[in-house]
Amino acid sequence: MRTTIGEFLLDRLKTVGITEIIGVPGDFNLNLLEQVDEAEGIRFVGTCNELNAAYAADGYARSRGLSALLTTYGVGELSALNGIAGAAAEHVPLISIAGAPPLYATEDRYALHHTMADGNFSDMLASIGQFTAAAVRITPMNAVEEIDRALHTCLREKRPVHIQLPSDISHLTIEVPDTPFDATLPTSDPERLESAAERILEMFGNAQRPVILADLDADRHGFVPALQAIAEKTRTPYAHLSSGRGTLNEQHPLYLGTYNGAGSSPAVREAVENSDFLITTTPRFIEGNSGAFTHQLPEEALLDFGDQHVSIQGEHYVGITVLELLDILLERIPAATSKDLEPAPEQPEWIVQEDSPLTQERMWPRFSRFLRSDDVVIAEAGTSNIGLGAQTFPANSRYINSSIWGSIGFTLPALLGSQLAAPERRHILFIGDGSFQLTAQELSTILREDQAPIIVLVNNRGYTIERFILGMNSGYNDVANWSYGDLPKVFRPDTTMVSYSASTEGELEEALASIEASDAGAFLEVHLDPEDAPAGLQSFGPMTADFDYGPRGPRNP
Amino acid sequence: MRTTIGEFLLDRLKTVGITEIIGVPGDFNLNLLEQVDEAEGIRFVGTCNELNAAYAADGYARSRGLSALLTTYGVGELSALNGIAGAAAEHVPLISIAGAPPLYATEDRYALHHTMADGNFSDMLASIGQFTAAAVRITPMNAVEEIDRALHTCLREKRPVHIQLPSDISHLTIEVPDTPFDATLPTSDPERLESAAERILEMFGNAQRPVILADLDADRHGFVPALQAIAEKTRTPYAHLSSGRGTLNEQHPLYLGTYNGAGSSPAVREAVENSDFLITTTPRFIEGNSGAFTHQLPEEALLDFGDQHVSIQGEHYVGITVLELLDILLERIPAATSKDLEPAPEQPEWIVQEDSPLTQERMWPRFSRFLRSDDVVIAEAGTSNIGLGAQTFPANSRYINSSIWGSIGFTLPALLGSQLAAPERRHILFIGDGSFQLTAQELSTILREDQAPIIVLVNNRGYTIERFILGMNSGYNDVANWSYGDLPKVFRPDTTMVSYSASTEGELEEALASIEASDAGAFLEVHLDPEDAPAGLQSFGPMTADFDYGPRGPRNP
Repeated sequence: MRTTIGEFLLDRLKTVGITEIIGVPGDFNLNLLEQVDEAEGIRFVGTCNELNAAYAADGYARSRGLSALLTTYGVGELSALNGIAGAAAEHVPLISIAGAPPLYATEDRYALHHTMADGNFSDMLASIGQFTAAAVRITPMNAVEEIDRALHTCLREKRPVHIQLPSDISHLTIEVPDTPFDATLPTSDPERLESAAERILEMFGNAQRPVILADLDADRHGFVPALQAIAEKTRTPYAHLSSGRGTLNEQHPLYLGTYNGAGSSPAVREAVENSDFLITTTPRFIEGNSGAFTHQLPEEALLDFGDQHVSIQGEHYVGITVLELLDILLERIPAATSKDLEPAPEQPEWIVQEDSPLTQERMWPRFSRFLRSDDVVIAEAGTSNIGLGAQTFPANSRYINSSIWGSIGFTLPALLGSQLAAPERRHILFIGDGSFQLTAQELSTILREDQAPIIVLVNNRGYTIERFILGMNSGYNDVANWSYGDLPKVFRPDTTMVSYSASTEGELEEALASIEASDAGAFLEVHLDPEDAPAGLQSFGPMTADFDYGPRGPRNP
Repeated sequence: MRTTIGEFLLDRLKTVGITEIIGVPGDFNLNLLEQVDEAEGIRFVGTCNELNAAYAADGYARSRGLSALLTTYGVGELSALNGIAGAAAEHVPLISIAGAPPLYATEDRYALHHTMADGNFSDMLASIGQFTAAAVRITPMNAVEEIDRALHTCLREKRPVHIQLPSDISHLTIEVPDTPFDATLPTSDPERLESAAERILEMFGNAQRPVILADLDADRHGFVPALQAIAEKTRTPYAHLSSGRGTLNEQHPLYLGTYNGAGSSPAVREAVENSDFLITTTPRFIEGNSGAFTHQLPEEALLDFGDQHVSIQGEHYVGITVLELLDILLERIPAATSKDLEPAPEQPEWIVQEDSPLTQERMWPRFSRFLRSDDVVIAEAGTSNIGLGAQTFPANSRYINSSIWGSIGFTLPALLGSQLAAPERRHILFIGDGSFQLTAQELSTILREDQAPIIVLVNNRGYTIERFILGMNSGYNDVANWSYGDLPKVFRPDTTMVSYSASTEGELEEALASIEASDAGAFLEVHLDPEDAPAGLQSFGPMTADFDYGPRGPRNP
């Protein structure tokens, strides 16, 4: 079968479930955009800039499983790079496509705009390739092989891939396979699979204190349903790292809480560190999720699920597709016979202190009660992620944050992307003023797309997380105080989004009641003291300063 | 003498004339920011995000000669990369500094936030180093040598350099030289210098039709004053590439116009291509400044000034600092004895068509008359650069645009940076709505810094340059129609900036009169038809489409 390279690429994207391509037009990608316009079942969503597009594609992939980003050569793809690298750090599968200069100009080393004008066309791929699982320039001769390889790699590794499509070839026809794209993962080596399953079942049978500790790979590789079912069938308690929130059900009696090394609650720490069978999902301990590297996992009792291997007490079983292994374990593992579990205690009733100014201590528990099952909750790095992170999430909620990469400004475009991917779900974003300013214009695209999220803007006049690390009163941690609530009308004069502002608990209650009663989008600005912070941040700040600045510095002159 | 590494770096920056460091705080750079706060004669200017900071630093360097950018590791430096790469493409000397993780964590390969959490600390330097003349991580042992090397390289090559400063070392003391930093360029090899000078003087003496053709390196390497003086002393006519605008005086009778290959006016084309002694400054011909590669320079009659060599009729003279050579030429070259030149004709009087809707054809000549000597004029890639590029500039004006890199959104932050660098000059920005949306939030920093520029926002509902390439009516070229004029008050509620809107020539006259009569900043939105474009763009569009998409594509199905 013959088709054009552009149509082949778009067909592949549709096959793996992508219905929106997010990006910014540029002369090297306009012809592909014409092909998108002609295609059925897939459309282009333009954002205000390319970094925002990459963040949006990240959010899309977290809710849909995969996403596509479209930029133009040089200026566009490099602008997007921090977002692509973030997807790499956070293990998010994102297909980045850049319209590139025409192939003949590339091969003949023309000096061109959007380049260094020196005939070098390998610099972009070399730069971006540091952060992608595949980075390739398409030609008519390699198109079928390289596009399919990039897609398979993206799906298998859960990492971004980058494809440069020269502008003069997307309308050329190529011979393409008649068979549909195969998105299934390779199957396991049977012997290794069986050996691993037997050994794990034996360990499970002998374990007195088994615990599951989930990190974000549990989500990315689709382990969560099977892990949850195994936990429930065997009555195995479970915890997560703060980077693994929004995976296992936090409303279940088996749920222990967040493990954070010495920063854990004593019960969670005891359960994890003294487990005689600790099941992990490739935990990645960084400063923020390890209590400053005070984590101590029982190495001799570890079962770690990678994505393509398992490690049992330090022995690697390679050639294993873990989803297969999890299915076997779930089927064969004996159900626990002990009595029913006590349901988790209900949250105590919330008593509003009508005229009290909002505080971090009281605000996050209140917002936690506002969340409901099936919500997509997004929290920006800093105050929002730390404040909300101390709360429990409703069942079946999805939690989007950037716990490893921590790029501020990520969440507003991620909200756009996640809503494109899962328009049926209610979306709530919590974002600080400092972070909001990095990517604020993407509110415009949210409104243009008729999305109706609830956006909570935490206005505390600057980078509060940084104040608690260094420079509590330093001017560099201040940001300009915008009239944030006026922005929806500026970005879309006929918007139906309603702006609210709250400085007291009473005002917050009133706003939340109104938001609950309406289907319209909401932009809720809450005002907090710049020197107020969630308890977790108050300890995180000095700990980070110790780690970053060592024994010498402004704090120890 | 002993001082801290941070103070040493700041002292060096001050020595080369930097009084503002532009950037975004992050935990790995907060301690350096504390040192900036303590230092005299240098301050930090925070922007809303890092790409904007890089663009601002680019604008700063164009008006000051050098600039400093400060970001944080990973998320910050990668966000800035498109701006750093743009400085590389446009030959702008920019010192990029990134606060990096503590050295011990780097050496021990810790998993950290703002990294891939895999212990790899070489990926950022490898990625960014593609676009910088030096990319290095500072240690206490290499600090003096590497910081000075980076600065010398930046000054000599007029390219960005990137310095990672680990967060735990900026307060450590090191032994630093007592002698001040030497910013002077190396001197030439005497024999080569003399040989080149003699040969050039001989050629000049024999030439019947000498012409100077300036490109942007003439500005970057400081050749302009000497070239202008040589032209005037010898009565040598001069032209420039569109990428070399804002260099030689366009109000002088010797000024020919813009050379653009087959797209030049016949007189300019004839003068340049039939010159028997054509003096160039390393012209870089790309699609947009060569009439689609139709340029034809007389190779056998070429004298090309590089920065560290000259090329005479194809023979390279290396080891030459061209500024020295230009001084010698200016001194020794005989003055022309022909009669005085006719002054350039005055612009004809402007007759306002009061009720006529604004058009691209009439608007740009009108704005050209609004400009005055000593202005800094900034024009965004696309309609603004092409429309304004067809006009002549006042003497002593500076023209900032991105003619090689062409990254849209560049100019608003560049306006911020240039105003920081040259606060005494009037600044006027022309920017389209599509471009404005990429970096719009930086208007907030312009207002916070009490700058009072004139911003002309060309609202034509989308990416007009792209409409003329492909997709005249395609939705992907549309952008949301903001209430732009409300933004100054949103970003700074007590702003003194005045918003204007003009759809007719009469309204434009009224606005310009009011702007002229006031010292306050102005935000002037002009409304144009989305399908209207300057004549240059109307021919550039199809030419670009031919170049980009070749014989097959949506235009030739």
